[in-house]
Amino acid sequence: MDRFTVVSSDCHAGLPPEQYRSYLDPEYREPFDQVLPIQKRMTDEAEKVFLLADINAQWRAGVEEALTGAWDHERRKEVLDADGVAGEIVFPDGVTEQNAPPFGAGLALPTRNIVPDLQWAGARAHNRWLAEFCALDPVRRFGVAVCPLLWDVDRAVAEARFGAENGLGGMLIPAITTGFEAYHNPCYDPFWEACEDLGVVVCFHSGPGPFEDFFGQGFPETDPQRYPGAVGVYISEVFFWTYRSLIFMLWGGVFERFPKLRASVTETGQGWLLPPLLRMLDHHYEDTQFSAKLGDFRSHLSMSPADYFRRNCAVGASCMPRDDAEIRHQMGMDQIMWGTDYPHPEGTWPDTAARMRETFRGLPEGDIAAMLGGNAVDFYGLDGAALDQVASHVGPRKADFAA
Amino acid sequence: MDRFTVVSSDCHAGLPPEQYRSYLDPEYREPFDQVLPIQKRMTDEAEKVFLLADINAQWRAGVEEALTGAWDHERRKEVLDADGVAGEIVFPDGVTEQNAPPFGAGLALPTRNIVPDLQWAGARAHNRWLAEFCALDPVRRFGVAVCPLLWDVDRAVAEARFGAENGLGGMLIPAITTGFEAYHNPCYDPFWEACEDLGVVVCFHSGPGPFEDFFGQGFPETDPQRYPGAVGVYISEVFFWTYRSLIFMLWGGVFERFPKLRASVTETGQGWLLPPLLRMLDHHYEDTQFSAKLGDFRSHLSMSPADYFRRNCAVGASCMPRDDAEIRHQMGMDQIMWGTDYPHPEGTWPDTAARMRETFRGLPEGDIAAMLGGNAVDFYGLDGAALDQVASHVGPRKADFAA
Repeated sequence: MDRFTVVSSDCHAGLPPEQYRSYLDPEYREPFDQVLPIQKRMTDEAEKVFLLADINAQWRAGVEEALTGAWDHERRKEVLDADGVAGEIVFPDGVTEQNAPPFGAGLALPTRNIVPDLQWAGARAHNRWLAEFCALDPVRRFGVAVCPLLWDVDRAVAEARFGAENGLGGMLIPAITTGFEAYHNPCYDPFWEACEDLGVVVCFHSGPGPFEDFFGQGFPETDPQRYPGAVGVYISEVFFWTYRSLIFMLWGGVFERFPKLRASVTETGQGWLLPPLLRMLDHHYEDTQFSAKLGDFRSHLSMSPADYFRRNCAVGASCMPRDDAEIRHQMGMDQIMWGTDYPHPEGTWPDTAARMRETFRGLPEGDIAAMLGGNAVDFYGLDGAALDQVASHVGPRKADFAA
Repeated sequence: MDRFTVVSSDCHAGLPPEQYRSYLDPEYREPFDQVLPIQKRMTDEAEKVFLLADINAQWRAGVEEALTGAWDHERRKEVLDADGVAGEIVFPDGVTEQNAPPFGAGLALPTRNIVPDLQWAGARAHNRWLAEFCALDPVRRFGVAVCPLLWDVDRAVAEARFGAENGLGGMLIPAITTGFEAYHNPCYDPFWEACEDLGVVVCFHSGPGPFEDFFGQGFPETDPQRYPGAVGVYISEVFFWTYRSLIFMLWGGVFERFPKLRASVTETGQGWLLPPLLRMLDHHYEDTQFSAKLGDFRSHLSMSPADYFRRNCAVGASCMPRDDAEIRHQMGMDQIMWGTDYPHPEGTWPDTAARMRETFRGLPEGDIAAMLGGNAVDFYGLDGAALDQVASHVGPRKADFAA
């Protein structure tokens, strides 16, 4: 084939808020009606605090139609075709701040100021819709369900089963576990076991953070002027909050007990981070000169946490810059999965073709093919042959990546 | 001079717990008597959970006498002389787990399960003793006072003044701010201003962490068996907790408003971390492709957070390995301050001479001199000439560092 099969490891989809109503269990529709205007007002507030309304409005101008691909089946097909993308991993939160599932069941999965039962209801509504949405194009769309695991392990097991039976092969679980038992505690084993048995991938995605640390203890009722540089702190440490829960799993022996379990970390595949992070994990496993006094933390592991990472995990390297592609072997050539982040404004869309070439031009064809799609096909267990078929019409031409 | 002037940027001192009594304000002596046996029991418990009693006992065997240098003036002089160390920066918590100030006023400065007024009383007791201890050898001992800033900014300002007037030139402030306003909030400006005016250094030291995340929400009443790998997680992320508060200060513009304020980060000068961390801060300041939508977080800064770090901060690179010395220019040649971590078991003592040579052998003499002492003399404002005089008797011979 003269084209690459591209899988975007990082895409987003979600309904306009009011449309989630019919996907909720009936008993949650009255609370939904009460909360919807509050949620919309808070979204507007958050846009003032956290997202610059102007920049977002500017970015949307002229692409409003194309952005309805966040939930519209036909529009999304057009957009992805034009973008050269054959398949995609579909996370929640369509156009960042406007398409989140109800009751706080979005990408950040907060646990503060949340009613657990409502958050679960919102997650179920999103997952039902997403299952329908992915079923419209099951070869191309791999859905990641929302799963507020911390509140209820049994429900999470049931949700993993729902996902497996309904074409949602990933479970997004909370990244921020403050105030809860973290993921090294074997109390979560039934969930890991279910995911392993069902072939469901555990997913983490950049975004969550302890927002009250950045925007004050009164967040979201907050005056951003009182917190100069808050966003700078947030973007400087968001990598930590995205990887942290996985690191609890790695040290906790989760992948020792469940050797076929897979976990991904998305929109955090940075070259500045991954090589030193893996070296650090190896170092702490191998060299105990400084840590011997702290007791045994290794005998339940048969290899280094970094080795489990290399064996069981992969990273969604959204919008990967050229510099990172050049150190791909240090980052882990088998684990890098490129992504567009459509329809988020920080993504490559609508300049995907140019951005892809800028990143990969002149690299060995096999490496490009792996990072653009092959690794994601293998890791998420996608139908590679069917995706090749799609790519034969829409994929970027290999000739365009010549040095 | 044919010897290097060595300053250990990382040493510890503290009284045996019961001896803090007389340094407390009288009204806190009754609570002290009540709490002391509980504190001792909890230390023993913690040694079971967190520190392997066996390894510590093994390490102490045969060096019990020398370890009394944690609080004994003459013994400490002998130990440091034999170690080749002319000057030292003195943090709390003598022999790790046995010499912490009362009422939770030690290195970790926790804010959970703490009575603020008691923690302040414990801090004051330690600081009074430390001032006496440093006054016995003011050229060689630079004391770092304990300062539970989060509870009370005015008291912290008063403590900075006490420190400046009593030979304690550093203030150790809490690293873990969860549940409190973080350090980008200008509510702390009176403290930064006082430290700048008084020439007092703001200090962070490796150790603090959210222990309940690692050892369960019931910590310290915990069963470590329920948390496999907990210590692995802790040592993998302790760097983050040590740098985090400083990063809030950097982005918050603290060093923009107080350009002569200095801050140090100790026992976290790792080569794997520092270069990528500084590149990341520069990147987030300079490249806003991914962050533009998040609003303004830079206009209050006249340079990158990494530039403030380079101008206003320094790192205590305790027990620095050879690999790190080889990438000293990437880490920041002007900021690396070597340290022994005496009397902690993970430190270089009693093998300091050999460890120093292993790390620095064959490097340019000027670089060795800077990392072993010169940088610390400049940063902490020590009396370099007087320390050279001490070093002329005790310092390691330059000839021993030939390639």
